[in-house]
Amino acid sequence: MLEQVTVAGGGTLGSQIAFQSAFFGKQVIVYDISEDAIEKARQRLANLDQNYRRDMQATPAQLVETHQRIQLTTVPEQAFSHRDLIIEAVPEVPTIKINLYKQVATLRATNSILASNSSTFLPSQFADETGAPAQFANLHFANSIWQHNTAEIMGHAGTSVDTIHQLTEFAKSIQMVPIVLKKEQPGYVLNTMLTPFLENAAYLWGAGIVDAPTVDQTWMIGTGAPEGPFGIIDKVGLRTFYSIESQRKGNDPEYQPILEQLKAMIDRDALGVETGHGFYDYPDPAYERPDFLV
Amino acid sequence: MLEQVTVAGGGTLGSQIAFQSAFFGKQVIVYDISEDAIEKARQRLANLDQNYRRDMQATPAQLVETHQRIQLTTVPEQAFSHRDLIIEAVPEVPTIKINLYKQVATLRATNSILASNSSTFLPSQFADETGAPAQFANLHFANSIWQHNTAEIMGHAGTSVDTIHQLTEFAKSIQMVPIVLKKEQPGYVLNTMLTPFLENAAYLWGAGIVDAPTVDQTWMIGTGAPEGPFGIIDKVGLRTFYSIESQRKGNDPEYQPILEQLKAMIDRDALGVETGHGFYDYPDPAYERPDFLV
Repeated sequence: MLEQVTVAGGGTLGSQIAFQSAFFGKQVIVYDISEDAIEKARQRLANLDQNYRRDMQATPAQLVETHQRIQLTTVPEQAFSHRDLIIEAVPEVPTIKINLYKQVATLRATNSILASNSSTFLPSQFADETGAPAQFANLHFANSIWQHNTAEIMGHAGTSVDTIHQLTEFAKSIQMVPIVLKKEQPGYVLNTMLTPFLENAAYLWGAGIVDAPTVDQTWMIGTGAPEGPFGIIDKVGLRTFYSIESQRKGNDPEYQPILEQLKAMIDRDALGVETGHGFYDYPDPAYERPDFLV
Repeated sequence: MLEQVTVAGGGTLGSQIAFQSAFFGKQVIVYDISEDAIEKARQRLANLDQNYRRDMQATPAQLVETHQRIQLTTVPEQAFSHRDLIIEAVPEVPTIKINLYKQVATLRATNSILASNSSTFLPSQFADETGAPAQFANLHFANSIWQHNTAEIMGHAGTSVDTIHQLTEFAKSIQMVPIVLKKEQPGYVLNTMLTPFLENAAYLWGAGIVDAPTVDQTWMIGTGAPEGPFGIIDKVGLRTFYSIESQRKGNDPEYQPILEQLKAMIDRDALGVETGHGFYDYPDPAYERPDFLV
């Protein structure tokens, strides 16, 4: 069982992965590149207490123990030596990832596993850079991992069966539902469905077919979902959604009006839940009110 | 207010539209082309009693009154004269629709409204055939209309504001949530999102990335939805889904394995909820069990 876990990168997802792992008993090191980054990671970890209290019924003692199991460091030798599992959660920039993988390669234990949380890259793109391709796969978490508790596990053709098996058992041990992909698939399972879904919804709004709440209303009534695509976009954040769609649809003339209107919302700081305004106002967005569907 | 309503076509949706309208007090005529078709429509209407008892808490007296408000006829003069609203719910074949529209044109009251329930055609394609384009629009219902109670209202450029207004008020009066489109959009609001969503989900299964229950599990955990895409496909019916995807993806080499596997399921009568087998077994499909998400 993978017990000694390092999370490289203490950003939003990295902090959540570290917290969830420690909450379920793992010994965790959070590695980041500067004291400033470490301080921000420490703050993110502290802020997660309230989420685990509210959503996971965490007791004060559990929270204390969780934090006791987490160390933070900027020292690669401490972060990557003698660890069972190293989870990479650094920015989605190939050179940053490759530099990290090469550093890990010089320090890691022989049997250790390296897993990337990358949303956008396939493991085959970096397998050779890790120096131990059989022990490398992607292990992908969704935001608010304690609630959206899937762990998508995607190897490349050279990932060993044992690596997939160990990552699956690790995911279960920190109360994630492992979703094991049999082949590489850009976007994994969830985003292969979710991204075009949000994109089509944004089209209906941006092309002026109906307004955003009407899109959500239609989806919620039609499928019984607790929220519609614009509720989801507000949670994802308009900047992230705009960045994804700029890449996917930047060259599609038909989609330009949609991108322009998203950009206009971003320019006036309507970024979604994080700024309290997006397609809805927060807290208490209209789609959560009982009269939204009648 | 539109009170005298004719539904042309007593198939699955036509019967539901007639029943819902009569249940909420409209005087309804169901028109179909043969005594045989009328007999089948009568049976469908009778079968709906149990749905309205279970889902709408209908009393025996309400059900008796509902049926008293519905007449069935094969006589066009009876069906189309002196009516406020004629809802066309005949097969999705242009010549059938056009013939009906021309027949209606010779018999209808001057101020009557003609609405098509078509899923696939835009109102602009047939507006001229109706002889009264300003009084023509699409009024689109989803299957199980008493539960999925959206009514998508889509005019063409020449539909009058009054027609849209009257259809909106009619929809509300039979407890539908009106979704008024400001422009023509193939697939309306719901299917613009739902069809590609189901298509992408089917790809993940048919291309061998993960199995169907895993796709649903991922979607349900990731979005909180009560069912995933394969639960929806089982309800829609594999034949309908296959027919839609054959049109959309028949020429896409990458999608052929998916179409072939859908066809194989249809060939062994795994049609979904209607045959008790599809991606799940019914009743009591696995995705409704409490252990599906853990």
